[in-house]
Amino acid sequence: MGAGFLQANLAILPVEHALDFMRYCQRNAKPCPIVGVSETGDPMLSTLGSDIDVRTDVPAYNIYRDGVLDSSVNDISDLWREDFVTFAIGCSFTFEHALGRAGFKLWHVLENKVVPMYRTNIATRDAGPFGGDLVVTMRAFHPDKVDEARSISRRYPLAHGGPVFAGDPQEIGIADLGTPDWGDAPPDIENTIPVFWACGVTPQNAILRAKLPLTITHKPGHMLLTDVDEQAEIPVI
Amino acid sequence: MGAGFLQANLAILPVEHALDFMRYCQRNAKPCPIVGVSETGDPMLSTLGSDIDVRTDVPAYNIYRDGVLDSSVNDISDLWREDFVTFAIGCSFTFEHALGRAGFKLWHVLENKVVPMYRTNIATRDAGPFGGDLVVTMRAFHPDKVDEARSISRRYPLAHGGPVFAGDPQEIGIADLGTPDWGDAPPDIENTIPVFWACGVTPQNAILRAKLPLTITHKPGHMLLTDVDEQAEIPVI
Repeated sequence: MGAGFLQANLAILPVEHALDFMRYCQRNAKPCPIVGVSETGDPMLSTLGSDIDVRTDVPAYNIYRDGVLDSSVNDISDLWREDFVTFAIGCSFTFEHALGRAGFKLWHVLENKVVPMYRTNIATRDAGPFGGDLVVTMRAFHPDKVDEARSISRRYPLAHGGPVFAGDPQEIGIADLGTPDWGDAPPDIENTIPVFWACGVTPQNAILRAKLPLTITHKPGHMLLTDVDEQAEIPVI
Repeated sequence: MGAGFLQANLAILPVEHALDFMRYCQRNAKPCPIVGVSETGDPMLSTLGSDIDVRTDVPAYNIYRDGVLDSSVNDISDLWREDFVTFAIGCSFTFEHALGRAGFKLWHVLENKVVPMYRTNIATRDAGPFGGDLVVTMRAFHPDKVDEARSISRRYPLAHGGPVFAGDPQEIGIADLGTPDWGDAPPDIENTIPVFWACGVTPQNAILRAKLPLTITHKPGHMLLTDVDEQAEIPVI
C-alpha cells in the first residue's frame, strides 16, 4: 500500500518550539528531511495533498507528555490545539522502492520484517532543546553492490539520501548488529557489508529528549500517506 | 573565486517572521533551497563554516526598510539585533560549475555577463506574509542537450535542482527574452531551446513584498562564500 506515493513520518508540536525544530531538521537533513510543514493551528497539510487532515488521516498516533509515551490513539481531534504545527518528514520507503526496481533484494522486505535500527555515537547538530545521537537503519549488501546502492539512494534527498556509513559497525558505536535498538534482528549473511542510512527515529528521539509538555507523532509503522509522487523532485502537489 | 565551495544568498530578518519565512522556503524549495539557518541573535553560521560572521563576511549588503531599498553597506555590525535570524540560500553557481565540467558552454559565463532573470506568472506557495510569483534564470541549449542539462542540475537540490520549464517563454508569462527583468539581455541563438531554472531572486522578492520594517540581504552578485564543498550532499561542515 502506498507504493508510488511519498510516505512521511509525523511530528506535531507547539509553535513555541517549531522554529527550533525546523532548524534542527535543516541542520540534520539526512535523518530529518522535511517534506511538509503546516500553518500554525491548521490541521491540513495542503502542500502534500488535497485533503490531508493530520488529526485523522494517520492510522495511529503516539502521544508524549514531558518526553514520555502517554498513550496511543487513532484520532487526535480532541487533542488538537490552535498553536500546533505539523511537520512531515520523509522516510526510507522511497529509496527502498528505487533499490527494488534496480533489482536489489532487501532482507527485511522479503521476510516481512522491520528494518533493524541502531543508536550510533554520531552526534546530531543541536538546535534549541533538540539534539542527541544519530539513529541509523542497516541493510547489508555484497561488496560489489554498495556503490550502486549509494548512488541510487543519493538521488532521494527527501528519503534520507545516501548512506552515512558502510563498514565496521563499531566505528559508529554499534556493538552488535544482532541486537538492534528497534526493529528485527538481521541474519548474519556471509560476504556482505553493512550499510547504514540516517533514520527518522532520530528526530523522534530528539523530540522526546526535549521533554516538551505535549508532542504527538505517528505510531512507528503507521505513516502518513501523501498525494505526492515519490519520484517528485520537490514534495509539493 | 569560490569555485569548489558552496556559495549562498543571504536573508536576515527578525525572529518574529523566521518561522513563516522558513515555511515559505520549504514550500518553494526550488527557488529557496535553505542551506543554513543561524540561531536567533547569533551572527555566526556555524554549520556552514568555522568562522563565518554574517555581519562582516559578505562583500556588500542591501538594507530594506518597509520593503524599500534604504542603503547598501559593506558591514552590518551596527545594525545587528538580538532578534535577527540569518538564512543562507543556495545559488545556481553549483550546478553551473557541474554543467561546465560536463562540457556545456554557458553564454553569460563565457561573455562575463549576468545571467538573465525574468518574472513569471507561476505563483509560489504562500506562507504568512511571504508570497509572489516565481523568478527564473534562463540558459539556452541545443535541443539535444536539454535532457543532459536537466539531469545534471537535478543532482543539486541545494542549487535550485532541475529546471522548472523548457520551451516557449510565453507559456510561463515571459513576453520577451530580450528584455530580462534583471541581468543582461541574452543573444538570440538559432536552434536553441530556452531552459528556465528557479532563481534566488524569488525569496528576495517575497521578503520585499512582505514589507517588513527591516530586512537585510546580500547585494546581488555579492554572495556568502561558505566552507562547504559544493559537491556535498548536505550543507554542513
